[in-house]
Amino acid sequence: MAEKIFSINHSDASCGARTGTLVLPHGTVSTPVFMPVGTNATVKALTREDLAEIGFEIILSNTYHLYLRPGTEVIGAAGSLHRFMNWDRNILTDSGGFQVFSLPQFRKITDAGVRFRSHIDGSYHELTPEKVVEIQTTLNSDIQMQLDVCSDWGIDEKSARKALDTTDLWLGRAKRAWDEAAEKGYRGKLFAIVQGNFYRNLRTRSAETVIEADTPGIAIGGLSVGEPYDVFREYLAFTAALLPREKPRYVMGIGTPEYILDAIEQGIDMFDCVFPTRTGRNGHVFTRRGTFALKKAENRLDFGPIDAECQCKVCRQYSRAYLRHLFKTQEILCSMLASYHNLYFLHDLVLHARNAIEQDGFADFKKSFLSRYKEKEA
Amino acid sequence: MAEKIFSINHSDASCGARTGTLVLPHGTVSTPVFMPVGTNATVKALTREDLAEIGFEIILSNTYHLYLRPGTEVIGAAGSLHRFMNWDRNILTDSGGFQVFSLPQFRKITDAGVRFRSHIDGSYHELTPEKVVEIQTTLNSDIQMQLDVCSDWGIDEKSARKALDTTDLWLGRAKRAWDEAAEKGYRGKLFAIVQGNFYRNLRTRSAETVIEADTPGIAIGGLSVGEPYDVFREYLAFTAALLPREKPRYVMGIGTPEYILDAIEQGIDMFDCVFPTRTGRNGHVFTRRGTFALKKAENRLDFGPIDAECQCKVCRQYSRAYLRHLFKTQEILCSMLASYHNLYFLHDLVLHARNAIEQDGFADFKKSFLSRYKEKEA
Ligand SMILES: [Zn+2]
Ligand SMILES: [Zn+2]
Repeated sequence: MAEKIFSINHSDASCGARTGTLVLPHGTVSTPVFMPVGTNATVKALTREDLAEIGFEIILSNTYHLYLRPGTEVIGAAGSLHRFMNWDRNILTDSGGFQVFSLPQFRKITDAGVRFRSHIDGSYHELTPEKVVEIQTTLNSDIQMQLDVCSDWGIDEKSARKALDTTDLWLGRAKRAWDEAAEKGYRGKLFAIVQGNFYRNLRTRSAETVIEADTPGIAIGGLSVGEPYDVFREYLAFTAALLPREKPRYVMGIGTPEYILDAIEQGIDMFDCVFPTRTGRNGHVFTRRGTFALKKAENRLDFGPIDAECQCKVCRQYSRAYLRHLFKTQEILCSMLASYHNLYFLHDLVLHARNAIEQDGFADFKKSFLSRYKEKEA
Repeated sequence: MAEKIFSINHSDASCGARTGTLVLPHGTVSTPVFMPVGTNATVKALTREDLAEIGFEIILSNTYHLYLRPGTEVIGAAGSLHRFMNWDRNILTDSGGFQVFSLPQFRKITDAGVRFRSHIDGSYHELTPEKVVEIQTTLNSDIQMQLDVCSDWGIDEKSARKALDTTDLWLGRAKRAWDEAAEKGYRGKLFAIVQGNFYRNLRTRSAETVIEADTPGIAIGGLSVGEPYDVFREYLAFTAALLPREKPRYVMGIGTPEYILDAIEQGIDMFDCVFPTRTGRNGHVFTRRGTFALKKAENRLDFGPIDAECQCKVCRQYSRAYLRHLFKTQEILCSMLASYHNLYFLHDLVLHARNAIEQDGFADFKKSFLSRYKEKEA
């Protein structure tokens, strides 16, 4: 049986939400947890002090990007990704599959692996399930993901089945490679990925394979890939219900309050997204009454904070008028402050969600948060 | 007689260098002092916490830029530039003259003032000596500069004299406007500017006018405008020697170790430059053995700091290999860390210079610092 890395603290009586604790090589992580994304070994425009100050216990980084730049050799020579970027808490890395399948140019999937061309210099590379485990082992990822085949919203069942066949095959090989790495002393945990596109029979089959593989955690892949919101919700609920209660569940690419609260309600424990930092760099910030654009003319003489209820250092120190000015003058400080606030905001939302779950009040909390969030700003 | 804002602590027996203290509305400033530049009400890529942590007691901001964006109305409504940008230490603002005279497009100087077109939207504006005092008073600048006419390296004596005539005329008007502002409660200090291009007779005449005006401090303008290094040094020494010992002396646009040490040796107390932050954003960093480019291939596997002797948080936490990676992936964190280190480096250089002066050892200190700094890196 897989090593147990997750314990449930409390299951909400009003819905599927639960709080829990992940025990990982670089410390424990309270769940539900939002993980900020540090694609190139840095969460864009934030320092590690910022991340620690907000309270993040785990961040995500991208295997595909790190493999190409600076390369496994450099991070291996540093000792680990943690040492390379000077982050001493946990890191989850994805498998690179999603990025490879998003490449507009050449890529070729066989049972052996996937051949692709670098988006940086056009050079040819091949990733196999084993190689992806090896790279993430060199990074010393606390959680690593199996290589999987990602498929788009709208493909036919035959194509979806073929992608799933390969994903299942790769899971077995990833598991063996990870078992071998663990025998050599690697302590990171492997997560299998449930695929199956938007076909219930395939999702069911995939869940069975994943459960059988008995990895320390399970990811739900292939959602938030362009499908309508209702379809996302339906397949999230359907897939989550197939999974064993005692394993941590991770959904990729979720980073707005609506999606996060939906995922928590379905019993999802972990999620990540570039959205809060990307949208921050574009001058959009979260508030309890919805998002707004810093550049809006009405902020010109508004000396109040982004969000009067936010306790973050940005809201305590800077006005909307100042942030608007920084945005209009394209100052780097605008990206720094907007990204900080947005990540703080989501972290705080998840903290409040945890408290609500502990009191069996998540459903009410979600309803009340979203009713204000979806109001037009006063 | 002008209010005394400056006291000399010690004059170095080995050269013209001196240490001193400026008493300003937002606290005292130890001199010699390097002032980082916050053009748009932010020192690019740094937070105010960063600036305070390094130890800066005064920063510079640009009247021309702030006048155009966000506009005097916005900063006035915030209460002051300090409140607008949340910086509670001192701010020196320039007069905007240098920027206006650097504009490639339309500008027209008369005795009344200067008409110009905004580089942002092409709109027409006029600055007069009085208006420039008024703007800086609204900003609540701790030190404000008179409007002056800047002239290029290489112009003929007649043109240089004409520019100086206008500068002298404007000084008188600036002084009256500043006196009136002070009567209404404004506590910032006016600095007059010595001009005269590269003509000794004009520099002498300008110094006499400036001394006669008896402002709290004096700037040496019109240097570091493209002239050869030896000419810069010659005119800096010549002009400095004309000035009264007891007034603080400020030279604009000086931001490399060589220029800073030269200026200190000539008894200059204050200097500023965008160079350390701009060059940092371009991936160039100072070290005790000269500057280097982060992108250099030899940094790829170098896990040592930028400068092993630097005590800054960047050098204590991050490797050259990581910084090279951040530079190559164009991550904002690279600008943040390189700018921080470069400003820390210059601040630390000036701290050491102060110590050397106190021990009558500045000339030796300068020689020893520059001999290592100009060595090729090992
Ligand atoms: Zn905030
Ligand atoms: Zn340093």
